[in-house]
Amino acid sequence: MATVPLLSDAEASPEARAVFDDIRAVRGTDYVNNFWRSLAADPEQLAEVWDAVRATMAAGALDPLTKELIYVAVSTSNGCGYCIHSHTAAARAKGMTEAQHAELLRVIALAARTNALATALQTPVDAGFDRTGTEAGS
Amino acid sequence: MATVPLLSDAEASPEARAVFDDIRAVRGTDYVNNFWRSLAADPEQLAEVWDAVRATMAAGALDPLTKELIYVAVSTSNGCGYCIHSHTAAARAKGMTEAQHAELLRVIALAARTNALATALQTPVDAGFDRTGTEAGS
Amino acid sequence: MATVPLLSDAEASPEARAVFDDIRAVRGTDYVNNFWRSLAADPEQLAEVWDAVRATMAAGALDPLTKELIYVAVSTSNGCGYCIHSHTAAARAKGMTEAQHAELLRVIALAARTNALATALQTPVDAGFDRTGTEAGS
Amino acid sequence: MATVPLLSDAEASPEARAVFDDIRAVRGTDYVNNFWRSLAADPEQLAEVWDAVRATMAAGALDPLTKELIYVAVSTSNGCGYCIHSHTAAARAKGMTEAQHAELLRVIALAARTNALATALQTPVDAGFDRTGTEAGS
Amino acid sequence: MATVPLLSDAEASPEARAVFDDIRAVRGTDYVNNFWRSLAADPEQLAEVWDAVRATMAAGALDPLTKELIYVAVSTSNGCGYCIHSHTAAARAKGMTEAQHAELLRVIALAARTNALATALQTPVDAGFDRTGTEAGS
Amino acid sequence: MATVPLLSDAEASPEARAVFDDIRAVRGTDYVNNFWRSLAADPEQLAEVWDAVRATMAAGALDPLTKELIYVAVSTSNGCGYCIHSHTAAARAKGMTEAQHAELLRVIALAARTNALATALQTPVDAGFDRTGTEAGS
Repeated sequence: MATVPLLSDAEASPEARAVFDDIRAVRGTDYVNNFWRSLAADPEQLAEVWDAVRATMAAGALDPLTKELIYVAVSTSNGCGYCIHSHTAAARAKGMTEAQHAELLRVIALAARTNALATALQTPVDAGFDRTGTEAGS
Repeated sequence: MATVPLLSDAEASPEARAVFDDIRAVRGTDYVNNFWRSLAADPEQLAEVWDAVRATMAAGALDPLTKELIYVAVSTSNGCGYCIHSHTAAARAKGMTEAQHAELLRVIALAARTNALATALQTPVDAGFDRTGTEAGS
Repeated sequence: MATVPLLSDAEASPEARAVFDDIRAVRGTDYVNNFWRSLAADPEQLAEVWDAVRATMAAGALDPLTKELIYVAVSTSNGCGYCIHSHTAAARAKGMTEAQHAELLRVIALAARTNALATALQTPVDAGFDRTGTEAGS
Repeated sequence: MATVPLLSDAEASPEARAVFDDIRAVRGTDYVNNFWRSLAADPEQLAEVWDAVRATMAAGALDPLTKELIYVAVSTSNGCGYCIHSHTAAARAKGMTEAQHAELLRVIALAARTNALATALQTPVDAGFDRTGTEAGS
Repeated sequence: MATVPLLSDAEASPEARAVFDDIRAVRGTDYVNNFWRSLAADPEQLAEVWDAVRATMAAGALDPLTKELIYVAVSTSNGCGYCIHSHTAAARAKGMTEAQHAELLRVIALAARTNALATALQTPVDAGFDRTGTEAGS
Repeated sequence: MATVPLLSDAEASPEARAVFDDIRAVRGTDYVNNFWRSLAADPEQLAEVWDAVRATMAAGALDPLTKELIYVAVSTSNGCGYCIHSHTAAARAKGMTEAQHAELLRVIALAARTNALATALQTPVDAGFDRTGTEAGS
């Protein structure tokens, strides 16, 4: 079920189809997954999100696999089932081993546990953690 | 403000003080941050959480800095101010550069954005992402 | 799947059936959607929630469609799949166009993105936003 | 800081002051906490929420302390600092011991941990948990 | 669908099978539910989580049913469908009546409602709720 | 407190200062609020977010005030204190009356309440809400 139609290539506008084609070209596969098809009713937003994903997830100061692990962590905490599935698959495609997946799960679970404790305790932030007054870039 | 007292060394039980001392020894600093002091009314849980943090965050299939980035990502998504502060500081202490911090923020923000979209659209998960029936370890 | 039975008209108590009948009369349809059937085991809560929905979502200082858009925004952020589906449908029934739906999605996604950034940065609230000390109604 | 003024008795409307007085009478104290003062700009909603709190938190099939523990658990998971503080205080006022508080924290932290795991794993719900088709009240 | 295989007894490692057997022995049933099978790829984490569940949910300062109610409350607030199903079932198995379930739902819904209000209002915490400076155990 | 320095005009890079100046020009005020200063360490992301806010929040199929109400609703549900403050102020600046604010709060609180109920009940989505198979644009 979805709150919008999932647009096939035939149903998509030329602008949306152009994004589908770019997804295919960049990924080297004919398959366009449902997220993009559910976004395609708004071709402008479709293009912006695809551009943002491509630019943000590329290698930079962090490598692409690390970025996928962070993506899975956020998606899990936000409870987005679709995103957990698609980015766990993406992490595997970028080389995530079973041992790395197991450690990712352990860190996510530990953080959820201590987040709950610090929140329930309303622990005040130590002054030493503050960066407000530090010099730019220090 | 906190929902519990933050125990000083003098107020803590011998069991809790032993954990404080271990934190000091492992970290090579005299400072014990507020989270541990707010947990110290339950020395058994204090010890368990400290042991879990030490074991989970050690180098393994993922390196310690990657684990801290994941921790910040979860803490941000869960809205735990204390944990965001303490683990951003921990990431810096483990070598996170300003450029890496900037990319971490970009990935977290992008994931929050697409999580919201996939959730609002209720996009159905592609069958190809399913691992239920795969062989163990495949 | 549900954690409770979905009560048919025959299974519901007279008090719950009376609420079902009111839902039908107000909406001008024979269909009672699953949310109300899953609440019906507690007829008092069923009646209170139905009364609250009717009173709160009626035209007032905000029009009914604007209220449905807000409802979808909250439901998306809370990750309630049922509510996203039912209130997106309700918004369409109250006249939401595809263009309005597209803009709703854009605002939700933008807010999720900047929420994540402000939370990760732990940006302190500007003093100018405070209303605590303002005069009532000012 | 708040997004609205906190109304003093002098600033509140007669309808809001009547709710303040009822809060004082029911609780046997002169102090009206900030939540009610921040709600008082809308006296009708103030009255409805106060009535709902009084009715829902009274002894019934569950005792008042158990209800406060559930309230703290929800407030922690939703990250509402105000509510965590006020309902932890309310639980103490209703007899919560330090040992009970410690166990409450342990259950909340364990649930957060396993919630994260089941969500990251996207574990499918066992058919045996389903109650949809069961008879009413069974 | 799941992001990992659900391991059958034949597929699980000897360490994971030993945990499955302990679950069966403690619960007096042959059935091992999907959560444990989805965790079994990491037998060490499987064992740790099972041990934590058993220890934390046992009778102590709070009785086992109260703990299950708290678990359902957290799982609902975190939106973990699997956990809501499994712990609602567990609460029923420990004696939760329909009347208690109805009151649990009412408290969860009330807390979600007032959490949203206090958060939208950004109500400042009353100084009287603070416990930071209190003596340990007071 | 913040996890990064808040950059003054003197500390900001020329690229970041240009965004500050554009914010001033568009808003007709000298004041640049903390969110932008906390983002300024990454001038590229600062510019992208500012551009996205300006484009998304402009009048379109939805009017600017409706968009701010949706923004407040999302920010409340995500528990972002900074964003609740800044967008409640923005809504007031765009004409939100006290009566509209009161209704916004009521809708947010009602949605949070029924979200919690539908989630706790795990109510299955009615087939009639599905749009997956509908024709594009229908």
